[in-house]
Amino acid sequence: MNKPTSQNAFETPQVTTGPLPGSRRVYTSPATALHLKVPHREIDLHPTANEPPVRVYDTSGPYSDPDAVINVETGLPRWRTALIEQRGGVESYEGREPTPLDNGGATGKYLAREFPVRHRPLRGNGTGPVTQFEFARAGIITDEMIYAAERENLGRRQALEQAAANIADGESFGAAIPEHVTPEFVRDEIARGRAIIPANINHPELEPMVIGRNFLVKINANIGNSAVASSVEEEVEKMVWAIRWGGDTVMDLSTGKNIHNTREWILRNSPVPIGTVPIYQALEKVGGIAEDLTFDIFADTLIEQAEQGVDYFTIHAGVRLPYVPLTANRVTGIVSRGGSIMAKWCLAHHKESFLYERFEEICEIMRAYDVSFSLGDGLRPGSTADANDRAQFAELETLGELTRVAWDHGCQVMIEGPGHVAMHKIKANMDKQLETCGEAPFYTLGPLTTDIAPGYDHITSGIGAAMIGWFGCAMLCYVTPKEHLGLPDRDDVKVGVVTYKIAAHAADLAKGHPAAKLRDDALSRARFEFRWEDQFNLGLDPETARDFHDQTLPKEAHKVAHFCSMCGPKFCSMKITQEIRDEFGSARAPNSVDEAEAGMAEKAREFNAKGGEIYLETKD
Amino acid sequence: MNKPTSQNAFETPQVTTGPLPGSRRVYTSPATALHLKVPHREIDLHPTANEPPVRVYDTSGPYSDPDAVINVETGLPRWRTALIEQRGGVESYEGREPTPLDNGGATGKYLAREFPVRHRPLRGNGTGPVTQFEFARAGIITDEMIYAAERENLGRRQALEQAAANIADGESFGAAIPEHVTPEFVRDEIARGRAIIPANINHPELEPMVIGRNFLVKINANIGNSAVASSVEEEVEKMVWAIRWGGDTVMDLSTGKNIHNTREWILRNSPVPIGTVPIYQALEKVGGIAEDLTFDIFADTLIEQAEQGVDYFTIHAGVRLPYVPLTANRVTGIVSRGGSIMAKWCLAHHKESFLYERFEEICEIMRAYDVSFSLGDGLRPGSTADANDRAQFAELETLGELTRVAWDHGCQVMIEGPGHVAMHKIKANMDKQLETCGEAPFYTLGPLTTDIAPGYDHITSGIGAAMIGWFGCAMLCYVTPKEHLGLPDRDDVKVGVVTYKIAAHAADLAKGHPAAKLRDDALSRARFEFRWEDQFNLGLDPETARDFHDQTLPKEAHKVAHFCSMCGPKFCSMKITQEIRDEFGSARAPNSVDEAEAGMAEKAREFNAKGGEIYLETKD
Repeated sequence: MNKPTSQNAFETPQVTTGPLPGSRRVYTSPATALHLKVPHREIDLHPTANEPPVRVYDTSGPYSDPDAVINVETGLPRWRTALIEQRGGVESYEGREPTPLDNGGATGKYLAREFPVRHRPLRGNGTGPVTQFEFARAGIITDEMIYAAERENLGRRQALEQAAANIADGESFGAAIPEHVTPEFVRDEIARGRAIIPANINHPELEPMVIGRNFLVKINANIGNSAVASSVEEEVEKMVWAIRWGGDTVMDLSTGKNIHNTREWILRNSPVPIGTVPIYQALEKVGGIAEDLTFDIFADTLIEQAEQGVDYFTIHAGVRLPYVPLTANRVTGIVSRGGSIMAKWCLAHHKESFLYERFEEICEIMRAYDVSFSLGDGLRPGSTADANDRAQFAELETLGELTRVAWDHGCQVMIEGPGHVAMHKIKANMDKQLETCGEAPFYTLGPLTTDIAPGYDHITSGIGAAMIGWFGCAMLCYVTPKEHLGLPDRDDVKVGVVTYKIAAHAADLAKGHPAAKLRDDALSRARFEFRWEDQFNLGLDPETARDFHDQTLPKEAHKVAHFCSMCGPKFCSMKITQEIRDEFGSARAPNSVDEAEAGMAEKAREFNAKGGEIYLETKD
Repeated sequence: MNKPTSQNAFETPQVTTGPLPGSRRVYTSPATALHLKVPHREIDLHPTANEPPVRVYDTSGPYSDPDAVINVETGLPRWRTALIEQRGGVESYEGREPTPLDNGGATGKYLAREFPVRHRPLRGNGTGPVTQFEFARAGIITDEMIYAAERENLGRRQALEQAAANIADGESFGAAIPEHVTPEFVRDEIARGRAIIPANINHPELEPMVIGRNFLVKINANIGNSAVASSVEEEVEKMVWAIRWGGDTVMDLSTGKNIHNTREWILRNSPVPIGTVPIYQALEKVGGIAEDLTFDIFADTLIEQAEQGVDYFTIHAGVRLPYVPLTANRVTGIVSRGGSIMAKWCLAHHKESFLYERFEEICEIMRAYDVSFSLGDGLRPGSTADANDRAQFAELETLGELTRVAWDHGCQVMIEGPGHVAMHKIKANMDKQLETCGEAPFYTLGPLTTDIAPGYDHITSGIGAAMIGWFGCAMLCYVTPKEHLGLPDRDDVKVGVVTYKIAAHAADLAKGHPAAKLRDDALSRARFEFRWEDQFNLGLDPETARDFHDQTLPKEAHKVAHFCSMCGPKFCSMKITQEIRDEFGSARAPNSVDEAEAGMAEKAREFNAKGGEIYLETKD
């Protein structure tokens, strides 16, 4: 079904490059690891602000750095390879030979062009730790941990330098967010199973990041062709586009033909962890017939993708045979693709799931490459009617059981969660997940808080995502406006990412993340002082903000005008407030009504002395 | 600054009419009041659904009824006048003569055309109750109460007929939502001050509705020109457009010239309550100079607007002189226009606010027309940094004091709330409002849960709105994507309204409103059964849902196709679930894992007997 994409007709993917408005990609090196160059983004403010640039977390990769040489044909620099080889425990080997089946049997003009460079894969050779979890348990701080700590710390030193009033408060529901993230803290969180750094040793292009309840809330953006739409070129640009706006990880959910080649292009050009659902490709390999799936085909697919460098696999090993009938009376049955594939296999063979029965073998494969588990919620509710039912929670209990098995095999684990859940049932999901799965990071899809708004499910789910992020969810899988209706285009991906950045940031604020409110406050000051450009640039989407502003007040002059379109030039509430502030300078401002009333008596005398004409200047 | 709109050049406002897709406006008459025709909307489902039409709350007015004769030049039928006159206590009188100042001094070609019909106003004559609050306290159930009860009951009888499994659960935080709303319940809630029916006796075109914690959560849409944009014609259509998508009330926040004439056109054509902020017009009358405001000018403006039929007034009587300096150290000072006008007045004169000092006189004016108070939060936070501070809560305490004064004068009251509040500080707002203001309905703007997303503040605020609606807020004032940036256009109004319908409905679901989940479940069934048209039509915005679907799968045939674009035709998770359901019919479906395991043994025998080929049909 895919579009013809012959080797000759294939165009080099065009990707979006250049800095975001008003900002620069900058790098810092941790004191303990000067060989690391950790990226951030700094937003410059107008000179009248008299404030330093605002530093924010940067997911965009080298694409936003004008000094970086971007060549999609060769991929990003493979800077981690030397570090991985140096710490040992791995071997380079010939690797699995790709087969036509890997691309769904696409041949001739239907076969997407191969990525031009072929790399020999690495794998663990059993002589030492390979995964971040194994290193953490062994008490070893890896470069990835140092790197991730440095990213998380963004602005924290700044935060501590602020006045006490500026220190974040918050309610973190038992999370343990430190004021300053040390590499040792990252190591400890990973060793406890409370955090992961998805970082396949065959994805050396990665800029490592950490996912866990005591770190910034992360978001995932899904891309992927499907049998009826999209193309290879579009997918690479979708990934670059999604991380430009803030995607912390990207899942490639491609189905149909050319899966293997598409994924290679994405991985070689991705600075963020890439996740997949290997059962999708395995299903392609058996012609779409779920009951023809075998463990061997599945395991071969895991190795294929692990050698390419996929950082985390969604594996629906919790969809057990006895749980399947629990979904029969649901309003929307099983809506997870992976879940329904496994349900169908279980029923057709009348056997327990091979993913569940042979889970330890899966662990061994994933351990050898440090592919993290994302234990899939194949029985998640597809409607608010089905939320928190027996099928969903039975599977969650099994995921908790499997988490411990995976840990015993040295693997990193996170747990996927719903789905469609009305607001009053969200916290129970988070609490049960923490309890059942030993605090392994939770990674939810939304949840959508109502079913009645197709076309707006980024919003129905953004509400639930913000709430569950506050309650302790570590990563939020985005939902685009096209959810339930069609495939997202470029604009939908951006809207989905920005909506989920809002949810994640709202959660960080509410949890009391030490640095989160610095950006809000900087933007609020810019807004108050009519620094329009700063307001745009500090926002999550400067381009849209500027465009909206210019629709009403298109003249360049208005961007420094001391009024906004809501009130017009004559009367402006913010302008009046500025006058009040000029009158009651910070030193003299009262802290209570009593103090204010006392101060007022004095003010009255001053006013009379001045003839009460303080605001005379506004009459013109 | 307004555009020239001479009497001759003025075009009759063109408004959007016709039913929403797949639905009809229907009317019911309560058994106790057969003279009332209460509107609802019924969405018809595809015959294969074998389900009755889904009835939903309808705010759209006669505009969506093809049988209604719409003539914007004469306005909607003034059906309540006879009822109001019949129950007595009111007199018809000549009314105030509009002055050029009422339209900001607009003359000649700059003066907007007057509404063609002039009606004599009514007012209370002191011989009996006038306001809904007075009737309620006197134990009298008005037609408006019966009407509002009938609207609220929508689907409730249906709900009770559903299986027990379908009855809503929820956490209502101390609200007392009945299974069935009786007129007596509405009366009692109004008498307690826990609900209001904004219904000026000079707005007889109104379709009455009730605002309170124990009713469906309502939303307000703001319209209004400003000094730099918009026109009279656009404002009438904006009102019709906003209620078409679900606005329960509309606030006309116009400033600048032609305010009086614009408002008359809106009121005569509005089936929903119209709110205003009279201080905006009063400020126009003194040339925009806040310190020139007087009580007489303000009171005259109240009478002018009350005679026109405005249903509720935002009055910032809680901005007291001693509170003003409490805002001096805020990040964003005073951001409410009304609040800053009064703050400026207080400081300039060094006197207590005339709104506060002469509040009882204001009550007497509002009582005579049954204009409801919306006590304004002039000191609301304009940034998350300023949330829940001393200034905000000092004002809220004063609003509680004024609520009791207004009740003593027979007036209906609701309380406005913030604003910008991070998630962890939202519930404190609701709890404090309930406690301080004697459970008078709370009416909040958002709140916005982060400041960093200009261009997306419908979403930052939709999150907070859903949460505070769940916690007990009675009405949510929408925020559009243009908030902080510019004036909303037609699309922005729609997006704002739909976003807030999502928030309100998510809150209704979470509170456990008996009928709320019926619509979700009907849509989920449609989704599961691939009834695409039903899924579109049951949604809040059928047009956008259809458009998004057609972008990926444009062919008409796909609308009945048993797959969606996410999975493609070959593999579809919902299709597989259907097969599981066919296998495990509702009668045989287990309720626990144990039962399921026992049933499985039996299934195994059946499978073997059938040769295990249950899913053979999917291979083709």
